[in-house]
Amino acid sequence: MKEVLQRNNWDIVITGGTLITMSAGMEIIKDSFVGIKDGLIVAVGQDIDGGCAAFHARETIDASGCIVMPGLVNTHTHLPMVCFRGMADDLPLMEWLTGHIFPAEARFINKKTVSCGATLAMAEMILSGTTTFCDGYFFENAIAEALCAAGMRAVVSQGFADFIMPDKPAIKKMMTAAQHFVKRWLPHAPLITPAYFCHSPYTCSPETLICVKEAAREAGLLYLIHLLETKDEASTILNRYGKNPVRHLLDLGVLDEQTIAIHCNWLDKEDMAVFADLGVKVSHNPESSMKLAAGVAPVPEMLRHGITVGIGTDGCASNNDLDMFREMDTTAKIHKVTSLNPIIMNAETVCKMATMGGAKVLGMDKLIGSVETGKKADIIMVDMNQPHLTPLYNCYSQLVYATRGADVKTSIINGRIVMKDRQLCTIDLQTAINNVRKIAAGIMNQKMC
Amino acid sequence: MKEVLQRNNWDIVITGGTLITMSAGMEIIKDSFVGIKDGLIVAVGQDIDGGCAAFHARETIDASGCIVMPGLVNTHTHLPMVCFRGMADDLPLMEWLTGHIFPAEARFINKKTVSCGATLAMAEMILSGTTTFCDGYFFENAIAEALCAAGMRAVVSQGFADFIMPDKPAIKKMMTAAQHFVKRWLPHAPLITPAYFCHSPYTCSPETLICVKEAAREAGLLYLIHLLETKDEASTILNRYGKNPVRHLLDLGVLDEQTIAIHCNWLDKEDMAVFADLGVKVSHNPESSMKLAAGVAPVPEMLRHGITVGIGTDGCASNNDLDMFREMDTTAKIHKVTSLNPIIMNAETVCKMATMGGAKVLGMDKLIGSVETGKKADIIMVDMNQPHLTPLYNCYSQLVYATRGADVKTSIINGRIVMKDRQLCTIDLQTAINNVRKIAAGIMNQKMC
Repeated sequence: MKEVLQRNNWDIVITGGTLITMSAGMEIIKDSFVGIKDGLIVAVGQDIDGGCAAFHARETIDASGCIVMPGLVNTHTHLPMVCFRGMADDLPLMEWLTGHIFPAEARFINKKTVSCGATLAMAEMILSGTTTFCDGYFFENAIAEALCAAGMRAVVSQGFADFIMPDKPAIKKMMTAAQHFVKRWLPHAPLITPAYFCHSPYTCSPETLICVKEAAREAGLLYLIHLLETKDEASTILNRYGKNPVRHLLDLGVLDEQTIAIHCNWLDKEDMAVFADLGVKVSHNPESSMKLAAGVAPVPEMLRHGITVGIGTDGCASNNDLDMFREMDTTAKIHKVTSLNPIIMNAETVCKMATMGGAKVLGMDKLIGSVETGKKADIIMVDMNQPHLTPLYNCYSQLVYATRGADVKTSIINGRIVMKDRQLCTIDLQTAINNVRKIAAGIMNQKMC
Repeated sequence: MKEVLQRNNWDIVITGGTLITMSAGMEIIKDSFVGIKDGLIVAVGQDIDGGCAAFHARETIDASGCIVMPGLVNTHTHLPMVCFRGMADDLPLMEWLTGHIFPAEARFINKKTVSCGATLAMAEMILSGTTTFCDGYFFENAIAEALCAAGMRAVVSQGFADFIMPDKPAIKKMMTAAQHFVKRWLPHAPLITPAYFCHSPYTCSPETLICVKEAAREAGLLYLIHLLETKDEASTILNRYGKNPVRHLLDLGVLDEQTIAIHCNWLDKEDMAVFADLGVKVSHNPESSMKLAAGVAPVPEMLRHGITVGIGTDGCASNNDLDMFREMDTTAKIHKVTSLNPIIMNAETVCKMATMGGAKVLGMDKLIGSVETGKKADIIMVDMNQPHLTPLYNCYSQLVYATRGADVKTSIINGRIVMKDRQLCTIDLQTAINNVRKIAAGIMNQKMC
């Protein structure tokens, strides 16, 4: 092995950690090595010589005492909403949304606040082990620019809705801007995948839903939509269109394997059959739906139907953090307790959802989601030498039930080290914090006027 | 103010933080100071001069950018179970308990493993903001000794049950040992409050339940019992004694204001009326009960009945961590989603439960639970200069929904600094980690034989 490896001039080699590959065979390799070159994983194996000396790489990362694993995939975020973190909690959902969040967005969301909010959110995500996210908001150009600077991987989608949004007032204008956004980013930025995001069946007219889906199909892009977050949504759509939301979207022809349905707390068995049949993907956001008292998605049943499910945090106004490890813990526990069945959701299944599951939801499973030769080098190292991670019997259990974002030590995205020993390499953290503090001070002052 | 303060020669002064007092008036003081002398809080106020120069203290802790607040009270732990963290997860409850936990306890729990486990657990607790806990296990002498070294405050209770326990086989022997334990610690160690702990109505005979309660009453001690953790427990007790568990305990005369009932997931309205009437206290352990699929305690209804409720983590075999901040987050969210009511449990209520609520449950509300003059100096400082804690609109929201144990920077118990800038002052962390790793290696080897 030494001879073969020495011929490689890798950019980075990660040595000594326990590698959780998340490959189809769920292989776990102790005393592992991972070779990285030109953004790709070019070699994975066991370091039988037990030292770094055998590897020729520009940079060696000693991951002894760490779990090495694929970076986490957060399938649903509204990054700039970090600006509203904790601004309006413990309120009835519609009062929260229409009395606080929508007015605050109309008043305070602009290119600058989006850029600052997104940068802070990316700092938080990198520091807690996320390497890829899927965002839907406004002024997504500003998010894409911030993302290029931070070096994260993402699906970035411009939002559509038929009431006044802070950036774009009408469908035609929205579509022009969205197409411009796609044209700008699609061919030029390998880490950015543009997409279209219709807010929901209750805020988008059938015309908007169809028009945006057609544009998405034409460009071969993902189509995102909040769906069945609350029980009320079903009756709203039934009253308005005489059918339930999934049937409504099915009849409009917007459901297919390029569609990501977010939340799905009130999906019934018929809906699941439709999703399974058409290959519709689901983003599960348990903490946000708990905090908003929206409901618990029937994820075990979805998985039994063969539906692809990823995990997301949602925005920080309804969570209030972007820590995917915390979300994994909650995902395992909430389904156990609501079904009163402790074996309905296990740690391994949750780890899959947060890595390969998320990658599949975003159509990126050929690129990311596991640590295997040929995949993009999106890798995190979790420092297991901590009291709350001692002892270590089962890696999946430890990652789901005891690990937290702050335990991630080093993070690599697309072969670039974005955090090393808890220090961010691509974002000036204190500036990011100060910028959002200033925005919040402005919001507080104006709210008090 | 300067003149008055300069006459004091305090041991410690904490300056510059935002003080969340958790007093009856829920006062919040910006740019605060807290003076500590001889283990007590001797002065609390606003540092109007904005500097430390005005204070005469042996040690000054600059808490600028921090929330200063009472240490958290964990009302239910089995510390040595950290040795089993992640050993057997995602299993049916009875298989987990009788197939894994009880046999592992019988085989591997002894004075040495209890001591090592308790020390590691205390390291984890101090590092995540807990200053007081309530433990029930075996070999509690070893736990009390470890506690003296670590400098934590605790109720430490010797366990009773009518099947073979790893340390004591029969009630008389158990009682002798327990009384010896109480005599040893009651008068000599100000941080230790001995208590008695009957495992549950289904593992303790009526004779044991009564005998232990009488001994507790005689010595003026707390009496702890797991109660209605699972739905099955109600039918087990009904079949065995012809009444439900609360009525069973009521008729045995073991319920009073010195009784702490742990879990109470299946408490009904009649049970709550009994608890409210007799002043029985409740320890709420949401994450453990979620993970074991045991149920969700009706805490909002308990609070409406006027029952005193504290929060606990339970042992690490069923959680799998001791992070009270995580437990607070879950407490708020689980009740919202199970009731589909986002206003049923707010962040302020949860903060109260984790501090003053816990103190009341343990009968220590005159001593701890708030930062007020005359109380014991059990104080933590949470570093808010972090991306996931930015911006800061509402302290209670931030503490419950975004803060995690790792954000606690400095911790003081009984006027002694036990952690400073994330470094433990009373426990050798690496030794504590290594000791439990060795125990786990032994368990893994023997399990494989």
